[in-house]
Amino acid sequence: MNQAGAPSPSLDPEDWKRFRAAAHRALDSMIDHVESIRERPAWTPAPDDVRAQFRAPLPRLGRPFEAVLEDFDKNIKPYSTGNGHPGFMGWVHGAGTPIGMVAEMLAAGLNANCGGRNHIGIDVERQITLWMAEALGFPETSAGLFVTGTSIANFLGLLIARNHRLGDDVRKTGLSAGDRLVAYASQAAHGCVSQALQLAGLGSDALRLVPCDASGAMRLNALERLWEADRAAGFVPLIVVGAAGSVDIGAIDPLVQLADFCAERGLWFHVDAAFGAMLAFSPKLRDRIRGIERADSVAFDFHKWAHVPYDAGFLLTRDAEAQRRAFASERGYLTHAPSGLAAGDVWPCDLGPDLSRGFRALKTWFTLTTLGTDRLGAAIEKNCGLAEHLASHIRRSQAFQLSAPASLNIVCFSCKGADRDAQNRSIVEALHNSGRWAPSITMLDGVATIRCAIVNHRTSAADIDAFFGDVERIAGALTPDLSAASSE
Amino acid sequence: MNQAGAPSPSLDPEDWKRFRAAAHRALDSMIDHVESIRERPAWTPAPDDVRAQFRAPLPRLGRPFEAVLEDFDKNIKPYSTGNGHPGFMGWVHGAGTPIGMVAEMLAAGLNANCGGRNHIGIDVERQITLWMAEALGFPETSAGLFVTGTSIANFLGLLIARNHRLGDDVRKTGLSAGDRLVAYASQAAHGCVSQALQLAGLGSDALRLVPCDASGAMRLNALERLWEADRAAGFVPLIVVGAAGSVDIGAIDPLVQLADFCAERGLWFHVDAAFGAMLAFSPKLRDRIRGIERADSVAFDFHKWAHVPYDAGFLLTRDAEAQRRAFASERGYLTHAPSGLAAGDVWPCDLGPDLSRGFRALKTWFTLTTLGTDRLGAAIEKNCGLAEHLASHIRRSQAFQLSAPASLNIVCFSCKGADRDAQNRSIVEALHNSGRWAPSITMLDGVATIRCAIVNHRTSAADIDAFFGDVERIAGALTPDLSAASSE
Repeated sequence: MNQAGAPSPSLDPEDWKRFRAAAHRALDSMIDHVESIRERPAWTPAPDDVRAQFRAPLPRLGRPFEAVLEDFDKNIKPYSTGNGHPGFMGWVHGAGTPIGMVAEMLAAGLNANCGGRNHIGIDVERQITLWMAEALGFPETSAGLFVTGTSIANFLGLLIARNHRLGDDVRKTGLSAGDRLVAYASQAAHGCVSQALQLAGLGSDALRLVPCDASGAMRLNALERLWEADRAAGFVPLIVVGAAGSVDIGAIDPLVQLADFCAERGLWFHVDAAFGAMLAFSPKLRDRIRGIERADSVAFDFHKWAHVPYDAGFLLTRDAEAQRRAFASERGYLTHAPSGLAAGDVWPCDLGPDLSRGFRALKTWFTLTTLGTDRLGAAIEKNCGLAEHLASHIRRSQAFQLSAPASLNIVCFSCKGADRDAQNRSIVEALHNSGRWAPSITMLDGVATIRCAIVNHRTSAADIDAFFGDVERIAGALTPDLSAASSE
Repeated sequence: MNQAGAPSPSLDPEDWKRFRAAAHRALDSMIDHVESIRERPAWTPAPDDVRAQFRAPLPRLGRPFEAVLEDFDKNIKPYSTGNGHPGFMGWVHGAGTPIGMVAEMLAAGLNANCGGRNHIGIDVERQITLWMAEALGFPETSAGLFVTGTSIANFLGLLIARNHRLGDDVRKTGLSAGDRLVAYASQAAHGCVSQALQLAGLGSDALRLVPCDASGAMRLNALERLWEADRAAGFVPLIVVGAAGSVDIGAIDPLVQLADFCAERGLWFHVDAAFGAMLAFSPKLRDRIRGIERADSVAFDFHKWAHVPYDAGFLLTRDAEAQRRAFASERGYLTHAPSGLAAGDVWPCDLGPDLSRGFRALKTWFTLTTLGTDRLGAAIEKNCGLAEHLASHIRRSQAFQLSAPASLNIVCFSCKGADRDAQNRSIVEALHNSGRWAPSITMLDGVATIRCAIVNHRTSAADIDAFFGDVERIAGALTPDLSAASSE
């Protein structure tokens, strides 16, 4: 099409009927893919010749949509991450749902820019804010903002705290040597907390890493000692970042005590609840994050334990005006109007750095309102039950031991031998390459440890049993000749 | 479903056949929506009772997917931004394509997290990097990274420049008083450049706003004088941000001269090419951005002039290692492996702040490879031709005048009278409320000015004629009694 001569009148299909047929086939094929996900490998490496397809020169001339869809089916679909598969337990990835898939198609069809202006996308995003405020015990007046993920949401929380503490002038003048701001998080905090300080120009040295207790939770008396030392040395404590679900083992910091600590000292209390925030959907588990309702800001992801398609991070902030003051600015081309498309008081772009923002609220709205939060909460409870089930396998095992408490949905375990670092790595590689299971590796006390983050709503107790059976089998095969087995 | 008792075994549909039927109806309805977009208003305000639907309490119990789709059809679909409509000329919004819509459904079905790991999503993103490196004259070894939008891409460009200049230690130690870094951009620069300095802790006072010439482009001798003054005062010039398409009027800074300027002085040369980068797809227009091939980094959006669904921002950086050093860090839970799902040298999360990243590369790949860049370039040429067509209407008009040169795709114009600020605002509000046209307002020399950013691939010369006819008609009606008309 259009290989020479006059340009097409638009970029729309010349033949809508033909396009429509191809689109329906694509939808069917994708529903088949999700429905039959259990029947395929959890993960398949892309062969070199497939990878080579993605080293092509700039496509000056187009191709029929049907041919591109065929390429997708052949070269992309089989080689994706696999986090929808019940054998996927690597990292903390949501599994997605077909509901979210359809919702994302609808969002792309509307193609709304939710940076601002007067349209329904802003109301839907506000609805999600109200829902999460209700779920987490925040006031209705809280500000909410979709971002890519918790890494950015944590960064924005820090910026709001910085602005709130130093005043709006810091936006103009920047940080000055006299500020000496410091932040606190546990030694188990996600690396994005340290990164947030780097991005903001404070530097990661300004993050005090507070030791944890045996459960992996921040030790309050250690926090207090660090705070006292900082005060004595002339530093200015700014913020405490509590974890509601630490990345390595899913530990939860003592949020109620951290709230007290911050309230007494005038510190900003931020909670990194990347996946833990969704515990609020479970009547049985929500008490685990008690204290979160007293945070100044909470960062979390809907694409993890709410299974909204990637990406859908969120920041909830108690003091909406503090958030607005940290980001809003007058710009001629963003002039508001009393009516029309440019109406509206506060636009999302007044609450964060993005002017171009997809309609992440839609897939989230579809997921929550179709499934209901009780059902999402029940899936979370099931995951935690499966973690306990896996932990009980390990406790009974001769060859393996738990490397950390499995108190939520993450189970870290290890071979028992002296060579366990190499052996754990080999087991995980062999599991990946088997195509059946995808756990991940994390480092605990300097040792590479097998980590199963059980997030997938499709994973069953039978899967856990089969998984651990394979782990034991692979470990048995590895022991006589580790190097040969690891290259299988 | 699942209102009481045992939880469902997964969050997948209980009845796939029924789900599939609903999904196909949703797809048909959305294709209808796009195909018939011209027949509906460019924008429709959501009535209060519709908005009230999005003040609901937390949905503990789910609802049938079909009922939720009905709600979407009734309460969301009619009240979106309208940027797909040929009458939409507000701000610089892409129009989307049905190809992108299907691609986004596929991406959500795969639900890949493109933060890292060994899967095909990483290769597809790399393909986009190679394509844009080729299009913009960058080396194959350049780094590329999808982000939400150019606001973030500009921020990351600044961080890379900062790290490159101060060394990796700045990530630990933060900014210090002795750094005194300053940046340069034109007075017409987008507000996100100033914001980038705020986010990074440098403060927006560190941005020198260089005066523009009559075409809206940065004046090189003014830049030189500011640089000399800063050097004399002990400041440390870090970066020049050139605009390839300024936000208000689409002016292009003298990129070749800026490249020379930066090369001679050892400054980082960053180009904010939010929409202008896509001029590279037009053999006729690409000379307008000559010099961009010498930038250290370029930020742009595929969701603007490439019509990829929101959001799809991008950062292209010449020195991939400089980018990696600004962001990469060792994290136990991101341990890489020689094979398996955790293989791969540099993951996207080593090149930016996000660990959770949607598969933005897929919708971009589908759009570019299906349409071809020649056709995208032709659509861009058509937009620029329409801008000239509109400008010629204005030049011939008694009541209106151009407020700035219309040298690319943006036309800013104004009533001629003393009351023109209020009158321009009223005209734009009336146009929005008519449902036929959606231009926007920007401030030029302190006056609210009508701004038509012609980006939409569906807009035709006949649309422009009809639009300007309506503008003249509304202006005529406003003149006798402005206040009454503006509240219509």
